[in-house]
Amino acid sequence: MLTVNLDRNSPTSLYLQLYESVKNQIIRKELAPDSLLPSKRTLAMHLGISVKTVENAYAQLLLEGYIYSKEKRGFFVNTLEDYRTRKGPAPAYVSHYKEDSYLVDLKSNKHALSEFPVSTWCRLMRETLSYQDASLFDTVPFHGVARLRVAIAQYLHDFRGMDVSPDQIIVGAGTEYLYTRLIQLLGPDARYAIEDPGYNRIRAIYKSNGVSYAAIPVDSDGIRMDLLADSGCNIVHISPAHHFPLGLVTPINRRLELLQWVNSAPGRYIIEDDYDSEYRYRGIAAAPIYSIDIRSKVIYMNTFSKSVAPAVRISYMVLPEILMEKYIATMNFYSCTVSSFEQYTLASFIEKGHLERYINRMKRRGAAQRDLLLHAIEQSPLSAHARVLDDTAGSHFLLKLDTRMTDAELTTRLKERQILVSCLSEFCEHSMPEYASTLILNYSGITEKQAKYFMEQICDILSVSR
Amino acid sequence: MLTVNLDRNSPTSLYLQLYESVKNQIIRKELAPDSLLPSKRTLAMHLGISVKTVENAYAQLLLEGYIYSKEKRGFFVNTLEDYRTRKGPAPAYVSHYKEDSYLVDLKSNKHALSEFPVSTWCRLMRETLSYQDASLFDTVPFHGVARLRVAIAQYLHDFRGMDVSPDQIIVGAGTEYLYTRLIQLLGPDARYAIEDPGYNRIRAIYKSNGVSYAAIPVDSDGIRMDLLADSGCNIVHISPAHHFPLGLVTPINRRLELLQWVNSAPGRYIIEDDYDSEYRYRGIAAAPIYSIDIRSKVIYMNTFSKSVAPAVRISYMVLPEILMEKYIATMNFYSCTVSSFEQYTLASFIEKGHLERYINRMKRRGAAQRDLLLHAIEQSPLSAHARVLDDTAGSHFLLKLDTRMTDAELTTRLKERQILVSCLSEFCEHSMPEYASTLILNYSGITEKQAKYFMEQICDILSVSR
Repeated sequence: MLTVNLDRNSPTSLYLQLYESVKNQIIRKELAPDSLLPSKRTLAMHLGISVKTVENAYAQLLLEGYIYSKEKRGFFVNTLEDYRTRKGPAPAYVSHYKEDSYLVDLKSNKHALSEFPVSTWCRLMRETLSYQDASLFDTVPFHGVARLRVAIAQYLHDFRGMDVSPDQIIVGAGTEYLYTRLIQLLGPDARYAIEDPGYNRIRAIYKSNGVSYAAIPVDSDGIRMDLLADSGCNIVHISPAHHFPLGLVTPINRRLELLQWVNSAPGRYIIEDDYDSEYRYRGIAAAPIYSIDIRSKVIYMNTFSKSVAPAVRISYMVLPEILMEKYIATMNFYSCTVSSFEQYTLASFIEKGHLERYINRMKRRGAAQRDLLLHAIEQSPLSAHARVLDDTAGSHFLLKLDTRMTDAELTTRLKERQILVSCLSEFCEHSMPEYASTLILNYSGITEKQAKYFMEQICDILSVSR
Repeated sequence: MLTVNLDRNSPTSLYLQLYESVKNQIIRKELAPDSLLPSKRTLAMHLGISVKTVENAYAQLLLEGYIYSKEKRGFFVNTLEDYRTRKGPAPAYVSHYKEDSYLVDLKSNKHALSEFPVSTWCRLMRETLSYQDASLFDTVPFHGVARLRVAIAQYLHDFRGMDVSPDQIIVGAGTEYLYTRLIQLLGPDARYAIEDPGYNRIRAIYKSNGVSYAAIPVDSDGIRMDLLADSGCNIVHISPAHHFPLGLVTPINRRLELLQWVNSAPGRYIIEDDYDSEYRYRGIAAAPIYSIDIRSKVIYMNTFSKSVAPAVRISYMVLPEILMEKYIATMNFYSCTVSSFEQYTLASFIEKGHLERYINRMKRRGAAQRDLLLHAIEQSPLSAHARVLDDTAGSHFLLKLDTRMTDAELTTRLKERQILVSCLSEFCEHSMPEYASTLILNYSGITEKQAKYFMEQICDILSVSR
């Protein structure tokens, strides 16, 4: 007969205790393969439990294949080959990944949380929770909640001069996510032209998606048209409103040349990443290429992770009609990746004008932060040995240093002093001498004290004194 | 001199009105290319505005390349080639995409919203908003908020018998999103074995990601090992706890065979999709293969979109250490796709036992819904011409019909009567006669009235009467 210890005071039900006990005896081969198990009734009597309890335990063992049954003969132990369990809990895995912290971080775009209207956002979220019915918990359409798409279309009309139908918009959890979908939509034969220098992550995404791309040098007006024409690429991925990291604005004639290029062969598209066009401290952002494209050849992308808060993972793309139809036909099985709560909350945030007000506050703050760092540079003896390259937009400017030190040495020595900073050369696919010795200074989170410390340290490293 | 009409009562600033006016005159070629613009001072006098206003307008025109400057000579109109603007707003695009609605929907897994603890969820969200500081709006680590990953690891330990480190978990916006990342992680040379029949969307995802896969027939124990061995695949993607749509549970010996297979050559992995293992109405879900794998060859995936609510887009995968290291080294530039709000709220929902209680409620409801549809079938004359294939789990069962009608005809005729239903054959890569004439009946949202209507209609279509 089976030896089973049942604990009637345990929160685990008796049938599960019995199941576990028999299972473990089978695994440990304490019960011989093909041996007959006691009948339900006999075992129930023996253990002083109900037949139903034994029945449930046997049913579970049968379901999982630890025992088998023969009609009118009863239940038999199955033969388990090569069963080895972990001996005790596995040693906890601790990854070597950690996020470093520095005294001064001029690399990460630390968002100015102090300006974010936390209480407004929370109030809108509470309103969303109160006023919405159960539809809040329902499945979201593949391209996002209609109300948010309408709000985005209106915003694009009012602030970017774009005529967009809400049906052309796809909402997704971050621009990187949307890039991945776009790469699938445009197919494996697409060949992408990206800007060199340019945003590293774009390159990393194309690389990890295994698609073909060419990094095309930029001149002072943007991507070089002669090299683009010779590249064999059919998709060009650009940020004409504000190039990263050079800060260039692509002028109207280069934009028109890009439209000529896109219209001169079938299957060509422009991906226009308008990611921080809102943050221009003097004047306004140029109208997007999308707004002057009459043949529907521009895919427009933007994100609220930058304009609202990094923790709000909502981006969107505006697809030309023909691509939207293709998306519907081939890819609308992908569920929308943003929860409905946040979509409704963001829709309210836009509809009620909070987004506009917030962006204006952020612009004032950005301008002040920029002045703070510029002032620290001017006051420092470094100013005689460095040149600021600034475009009064975004959240960084460039600082070209007069030094023979390599960029690697420079960043390493700054890191030793707890200062994190990137060099322009890190964003180049092909190394170019004119981009050497140029720091990218992201000022969005910097304090006066940090700016002073940074200046002292860099002067010390470069042996600059008054 | 320039003709410009300025409206001092407009909300648009004077400099933007001036900029727009000059820009449009240049686009319409009313200002000749290379003609000299009036000096700032002259124009300011002429229009009765400040020099600063003209300066700002000219700066914006210069930035966007509509004008150019020559030192000591002034500003000149640029030559714009081939500039055509849309004539008026574009006709609004309305996609043909719409979500159909039916009298009876036995296909979509309409979530039983009535059971979702909306008020609890909202309370937890409000608590999250109140108790969290500004870190709520900070950037989320690439693999998700630590507190949620700890809660998931604890849940897997308590309910699935798994020893998992929070550092092995990657949180993402839906399983489909995580599949895409996993495909990138495993690289372009991976070859995937999927179940046939199996979940259509898995196949669609592999297809749209352009990777190679083989659909391997299943027998009563799960995927066929002889065909898997011969397939040349190195990754097998399975749902051993509950096969869709057949409802099979893979028994222990087939699980051990799968582990033998995965260990018998380098670079092999099992993707174990445990997606609705919680929903078993009799007994419990078998322990995952992950829990008996001693060589870290199992990638475990699960989702809260199924166990919490479709609008909550949170899924996760547990990676073996070696794959996690690879992810950190090559792919951690991808930002986490779930907002921190929802991650903290879900962490509370799990920590406080709400998830467990909710699943228990859903199981009771699922069992009742299943009984409702089974009862309607039993009461109908159809019962003599059909056989229910049920596994007391998940949210559907199969109904094998005694008919010569093709599956396409069957579903079309049901659709004409406003009934949406899928056939098993739709989930087969290779058509197999034994899977014909089999309806997949998803009962999760059905009412008594709908069940009765469905029975009447199908009896009528099949000319079945008492």
